[in-house]
Amino acid sequence: MRQSPQAALRNGGGETPSPRPRIQAHTPPHHPHHFHSTVSVQKLRRFNTLILVFRFAAFCSAAAAFVFMLVNPRGPDSPRWYDFDAFRFVLAANAIVAVYSLFEMGASVWEISSGVTLLPEIVQVWFDFGHDQVFAYLLLSADSAGTELARTMKGTDRCTSNNAFCVQTDISIALGFAGFLFLGLSSLLSGFRVVCFIINGSRFHI
Amino acid sequence: MRQSPQAALRNGGGETPSPRPRIQAHTPPHHPHHFHSTVSVQKLRRFNTLILVFRFAAFCSAAAAFVFMLVNPRGPDSPRWYDFDAFRFVLAANAIVAVYSLFEMGASVWEISSGVTLLPEIVQVWFDFGHDQVFAYLLLSADSAGTELARTMKGTDRCTSNNAFCVQTDISIALGFAGFLFLGLSSLLSGFRVVCFIINGSRFHI
Repeated sequence: MRQSPQAALRNGGGETPSPRPRIQAHTPPHHPHHFHSTVSVQKLRRFNTLILVFRFAAFCSAAAAFVFMLVNPRGPDSPRWYDFDAFRFVLAANAIVAVYSLFEMGASVWEISSGVTLLPEIVQVWFDFGHDQVFAYLLLSADSAGTELARTMKGTDRCTSNNAFCVQTDISIALGFAGFLFLGLSSLLSGFRVVCFIINGSRFHI
Repeated sequence: MRQSPQAALRNGGGETPSPRPRIQAHTPPHHPHHFHSTVSVQKLRRFNTLILVFRFAAFCSAAAAFVFMLVNPRGPDSPRWYDFDAFRFVLAANAIVAVYSLFEMGASVWEISSGVTLLPEIVQVWFDFGHDQVFAYLLLSADSAGTELARTMKGTDRCTSNNAFCVQTDISIALGFAGFLFLGLSSLLSGFRVVCFIINGSRFHI
């Protein structure tokens, strides 16, 4: 099950007729074995690179949103983010997503460079997909609540007397929504990986 | 592709050896054909009934949330839901989910009773899954924003002078969250249907 692409490539590229591995039991017989393997490995690498790009974008957005919210209090009379539950929620959700994206980027780089997944393959694909979904819901919920609080504050004298705080909060929330977008795209791709895994018994494409 | 379960049942139950249909090309040869079909039809019916239950629960929750928010203004001096953007968002999202769930319940009942899907099969499974996902995000976002506004209002004199409005708003939002939960469960099941469809080329189980 956990055959690495390099191993498959070596297998397929060799001159001796090796026994057909179990993961390709459904390959039609008119496809030569080495052709299938090479294309699979190439496609898988391109696919993993695309996931890595989305993860990187999600990490940048969430980390920037976290920092923007954290460094918010400027003057001694400025409101603080930790006085508002919704902004604390935004900060926490962005921190969680940033840490998760960083871990996933590491796992993705590991997989691209070494050819095997960090966790066992079945755990990895379900772990990725499940956490993508849950954290996307979490981040969306936090950002919606933060948006509503920011909009409510617009009308009060907190924003008229201290506009910098409100502007920076808005930027942080907007970055959080960008992070949600990239996380949702990663979730689509990791869902596709789960389907591929269920069909083939491996991460390789059909 | 769009073979109905009844047709498959008649096919399989017949005495004449019919040609094996294309959708069951991967069935192992030691499974008799009629056995596979009967089990498939039974499983599919149980699965569809489970989806129908979740849809019904989502419809009830969303419709109740809609009604609770709509009938909210009681006295002449009470605040109105349409003065607050977040509550309008909650109302609209719950209305959309209620209408969608009603349509999906109709489609589900149609499928259980007649054995064929309302739309062409491939359109139906992707339509269900896509809309479940999008509307779940929509409802969660609306309810998060509504929660935040309701919490903000708790501190002001709007709620102290007119507590009924705030309580009824809270109930509406809580019902919205219940609707989100059931919609998420439907989304899991319709996602499973999509995977089954991709694997088998039909809605039947593996």
